[in-house]
Amino acid sequence: MENVEPKYPVKLSTPIAWGDMDAFGHVNNTVFFRLFESGRIAYFDEVQMPPRPIHQEAEDRPDHGPILASTNCDFLLPLTYPDNVRVETGVERVGNSSFTMVYRILSEKFGWKEAGRGKGVVVWCDYKTGKSVPLPEDIKQRMRTLES
Amino acid sequence: MENVEPKYPVKLSTPIAWGDMDAFGHVNNTVFFRLFESGRIAYFDEVQMPPRPIHQEAEDRPDHGPILASTNCDFLLPLTYPDNVRVETGVERVGNSSFTMVYRILSEKFGWKEAGRGKGVVVWCDYKTGKSVPLPEDIKQRMRTLES
Amino acid sequence: MENVEPKYPVKLSTPIAWGDMDAFGHVNNTVFFRLFESGRIAYFDEVQMPPRPIHQEAEDRPDHGPILASTNCDFLLPLTYPDNVRVETGVERVGNSSFTMVYRILSEKFGWKEAGRGKGVVVWCDYKTGKSVPLPEDIKQRMRTLES
Amino acid sequence: MENVEPKYPVKLSTPIAWGDMDAFGHVNNTVFFRLFESGRIAYFDEVQMPPRPIHQEAEDRPDHGPILASTNCDFLLPLTYPDNVRVETGVERVGNSSFTMVYRILSEKFGWKEAGRGKGVVVWCDYKTGKSVPLPEDIKQRMRTLES
Repeated sequence: MENVEPKYPVKLSTPIAWGDMDAFGHVNNTVFFRLFESGRIAYFDEVQMPPRPIHQEAEDRPDHGPILASTNCDFLLPLTYPDNVRVETGVERVGNSSFTMVYRILSEKFGWKEAGRGKGVVVWCDYKTGKSVPLPEDIKQRMRTLES
Repeated sequence: MENVEPKYPVKLSTPIAWGDMDAFGHVNNTVFFRLFESGRIAYFDEVQMPPRPIHQEAEDRPDHGPILASTNCDFLLPLTYPDNVRVETGVERVGNSSFTMVYRILSEKFGWKEAGRGKGVVVWCDYKTGKSVPLPEDIKQRMRTLES
Repeated sequence: MENVEPKYPVKLSTPIAWGDMDAFGHVNNTVFFRLFESGRIAYFDEVQMPPRPIHQEAEDRPDHGPILASTNCDFLLPLTYPDNVRVETGVERVGNSSFTMVYRILSEKFGWKEAGRGKGVVVWCDYKTGKSVPLPEDIKQRMRTLES
Repeated sequence: MENVEPKYPVKLSTPIAWGDMDAFGHVNNTVFFRLFESGRIAYFDEVQMPPRPIHQEAEDRPDHGPILASTNCDFLLPLTYPDNVRVETGVERVGNSSFTMVYRILSEKFGWKEAGRGKGVVVWCDYKTGKSVPLPEDIKQRMRTLES
């Protein structure tokens, strides 16, 4: 197990949609988790994890891969439309068969202050058995490189 | 081509979620299309269309199936939480390689009046070529039976 | 009533999120309507329609404004993550108490071809009575200017 | 501060929609938080918290109320369509100006086993200043009654 100081190396920018707001007139809490997911997938792309759309061609489909086991978010600022946000994603722990991702959402309207912050534990699973299996060494290596 | 008087034979009930409302305090327009989709899938199940989650096992995946080509909705009443709705779905036209579905959303809060009404054209496609192909006769037959 | 050749003067760009895809591995149909909505709101901003989040301060809240009466979409290309889209919005008809908007969604991955196209009828409503009322002359004027 | 053994007194049932699934063919993680939100709002209704749609009439709008400060979820089972879930919600801690809610999602398809479990911290806020204020005594009392 290794703990690293997260550097949030993967960044993506997206506009807030009017429809992201709920009946309180704020960006709904589920949208923060959608943004975290976008950060997670961008990170996966960066370290060449198994193909995202896992149903295109049978022979390409991996028999193991990442599963989100848990996640959390602290809501720090009430986001509203119009705004642009930057989602920054990193890894703060690489374990034997899981790793911990860190996310933060920065708001342009609030001078790029943090509007949301959270973590997610991703477990490496055998999709047939549903059990955790060791994380491939090459993926661990690409994460270490990206975070260093 | 056959035109039939739609009987809306497939019905499903679902509660409106608070989170279905947008910043105007009404159920958002995209939710009406999500409800239509739920009606469409329930109808597909009823007439035994190819398996919905098309990526489970390669050998089970069909090489042709339904694709939504167009859809529309008339918004008749402003839905709000809390409410329960009934989505009723039928087929009003069965063509050679496509069919037209009809949907209506009834609101308990409004005395089961129509809150939304729409249609959708579904084309039978070869997933490899992306072209339309004839609708299988057995599926047409099950639609006729369900609508009669 | 005036009909104009739509010029789609309002344009916005947004990335497709991985989570916009459904279990068929394509961007879900409801997302097209969410994108149309973003185009509609951007257009409303451009012609200075009444404030969007209508619940901030009581004295600012207008007693009439736009209501989406109907909308439709033709799905032309199967969008997938990753991609960037441009949503272009215009007005093709300005009536006494309603107007018709036109939308198109262009996909970078498909060489900026049209992936979706649709319309929406917006009615000017008195929010107390729920009835349509004449569209204010200054808003009509700003639409004409924007489209010319 | 009081800690109570959560009894999950507020229960709501809802069908899983086909559109709740993502490109992995499982109910997307954001849907778990949407279900938690539905449980939270049902609980708020039960203890007569300030009106949900806070923008109807200016004079009815409260100047303080609940704000979700943080939330988390453990994903225990891969939900898929079709299924029905029961969302059970309780309060496990009532503080001076905040309280902690507990949620669990039970799946009919999995024999009503827990598919998701989480918590949420709700802070009582003055909407003008954005600062926390003491939770009204009558609301605390209704929570205690509901949990006992």
